[in-house]
Amino acid sequence: MGIDRRTFMGSVAGGMAALGVAGRAKAQTAGPARPFRLATEEAFATPEMIEGWRGIAAGVSASADLAQWRTFLDGGFPSRTSILGKLLDIGDGRIADMDAHGVDMQLLSLTSPGVQVFNADQAVAIARDANDRLAEAVARHPTRFAGLVAIAPQAPEEAAREIERGMTRLGLNGVIVNSHTRGEYLDEEKFWPILEAAEAHDAPIYIHPRAFEDADTGPYAPYELSGARWGFAAETGLHGMRLLMSGVLERFPRLKIVLGHAGEGIPYWLYRIDYTWEAFTRSGVEQSALTMKPSDYFRRNFRITTSGMNDPQVLDFCIERLGPENVLWAIDYPFQRAADAVAFMDSAPVDDEVRRKVYATNAAELFGIDIAERTT
Amino acid sequence: MGIDRRTFMGSVAGGMAALGVAGRAKAQTAGPARPFRLATEEAFATPEMIEGWRGIAAGVSASADLAQWRTFLDGGFPSRTSILGKLLDIGDGRIADMDAHGVDMQLLSLTSPGVQVFNADQAVAIARDANDRLAEAVARHPTRFAGLVAIAPQAPEEAAREIERGMTRLGLNGVIVNSHTRGEYLDEEKFWPILEAAEAHDAPIYIHPRAFEDADTGPYAPYELSGARWGFAAETGLHGMRLLMSGVLERFPRLKIVLGHAGEGIPYWLYRIDYTWEAFTRSGVEQSALTMKPSDYFRRNFRITTSGMNDPQVLDFCIERLGPENVLWAIDYPFQRAADAVAFMDSAPVDDEVRRKVYATNAAELFGIDIAERTT
Repeated sequence: MGIDRRTFMGSVAGGMAALGVAGRAKAQTAGPARPFRLATEEAFATPEMIEGWRGIAAGVSASADLAQWRTFLDGGFPSRTSILGKLLDIGDGRIADMDAHGVDMQLLSLTSPGVQVFNADQAVAIARDANDRLAEAVARHPTRFAGLVAIAPQAPEEAAREIERGMTRLGLNGVIVNSHTRGEYLDEEKFWPILEAAEAHDAPIYIHPRAFEDADTGPYAPYELSGARWGFAAETGLHGMRLLMSGVLERFPRLKIVLGHAGEGIPYWLYRIDYTWEAFTRSGVEQSALTMKPSDYFRRNFRITTSGMNDPQVLDFCIERLGPENVLWAIDYPFQRAADAVAFMDSAPVDDEVRRKVYATNAAELFGIDIAERTT
Repeated sequence: MGIDRRTFMGSVAGGMAALGVAGRAKAQTAGPARPFRLATEEAFATPEMIEGWRGIAAGVSASADLAQWRTFLDGGFPSRTSILGKLLDIGDGRIADMDAHGVDMQLLSLTSPGVQVFNADQAVAIARDANDRLAEAVARHPTRFAGLVAIAPQAPEEAAREIERGMTRLGLNGVIVNSHTRGEYLDEEKFWPILEAAEAHDAPIYIHPRAFEDADTGPYAPYELSGARWGFAAETGLHGMRLLMSGVLERFPRLKIVLGHAGEGIPYWLYRIDYTWEAFTRSGVEQSALTMKPSDYFRRNFRITTSGMNDPQVLDFCIERLGPENVLWAIDYPFQRAADAVAFMDSAPVDDEVRRKVYATNAAELFGIDIAERTT
């Protein structure tokens, strides 16, 4: 740990209103020792992206996850309190929601499936605009927001340049990829410029779920299985497994991948993943690109968050399995209730040092967010 | 617990050689208190099925999992020590392997993908023959073998009759289904005669993994992800989720479903499964057929086994989450090493009562296998 950490530590976020945050924290809890709460999978949208989605969702060939979005997208101008209204607000309304639940800071990311449903030119333009808007929001509220660079994997070289722009000129904190892009995954060689740029700029890539391409017609179609209930984890867990087993972490050894939802199931399976790797390589069934056990890469290159999994037993399992440095807190605002996520993490059966790590300091270190002045 | 247990307790297995087993047990461990070891996901094959597979595997349109079998199927007559040789042996050779590792009893099932790759007529005939062979093996070695009824879901009414024949005339102990049948799942109404017969005869249905239909061309294709490493659990976990969320457990409330591989991941996700059920039903997004939380059905109607997951931390997680009554031991002979599974369960950090439950008594009760005379 530590040798491959970012040295640049959030200079954009300098000059933060330390007193204001600390005062609010005291007002909401019994004492000054409340941990700083930095939520790491918090969604926003831009008007341009939503307009683009509306056009696609109205068609017969909408992707499965845009079809799921129809209920959100219909109904004209969104109200302030609707999901869509909350997504479009990266200012005072969002901060009021954060204050209501004692959330100190959100790491913002363009909501799934992002620009990955558009053609390449449109995707590049909307991602670039979203990053400009995000950087403006962070500049206005540097103590409350940080953000991930949106990219268009459809155009890998453009995406690599946007990572550079986002991490240097815009001062953002990592990259968001909403899982597959038209059925293709980041381990494929065409996407390596993205991985290379992310590693070069110490930009962790957060792989956020979306639905499988055939989610509305295939075996995940019934009983609401295609989304948050099951299919999201199946699809994004597969994405993580492809990155883990492909050997790209040999080629880009300092790359950091972040998976939400308690690691999309992978921590549960590490024994079997290691077992098959050892058995297949020993027997010659597999010519693996890995030089150490898959679980070693998982601990070295992956971080997981608690988004959507306010489950103390799973948290305990993951901390024991991965170490307390590798687990980050998240809400998944506005899709999940901040009150649930805060109550879960406040009461989780861990010691105070681990609670501070999971609540904020792990994320601050990983994403290069300077919260030091606000945690004491 | 207990109200829906089978009352018929393995009369076929009467007259067992209690002394012989107890003597062997003593020879292998320090004292007489060694728990009885009943392995519950143990595979066999019949010559007719293997011949049928060879014909299909040679074709260009082989199912993904038969394509994986090519390495096993090639090479002419199998040696006694090959995987294929071990699968075809349900007599002395298998018992010698069991004795070598102190395995008292195997619950046998026709290996995946079973007859589910054949046309209906061929599938019905090969399943029926396999059940006759299995019953003969159990009759010859009633203290060492029990078995599950193979069925052809392609012919649901025939399958229901075969469940009746297997559970009554043949004295077998449950049903094996190798997950999807040509992309269709047991929650679909066409398969309800199978669920009805299983419930009526107190026959737990063991859902064993196989590969997704598109596993060799779709996103699971690279890095050996389609099989035991990842895709098996993804496919079979989905099967379990369809049964869990569809409402068939309202219609067949005494039905028991058994999932291997630590429940194919479902125990890890119960918080999120319950959360989405509550949120979607409350908001009107979902008209669910369930009348209680998904996790309540999971604890009532599902049992899980440790096959392929010799992981003490996962065992501990599952026992805490599901209760010690709901977890069964398995090896997955001959695909996994018996020595690993025995060493894992011998040393698992549970108390002696729980160890006995997981090692044998839970399975004996669930499948109606009388081991009482041999556990003391």
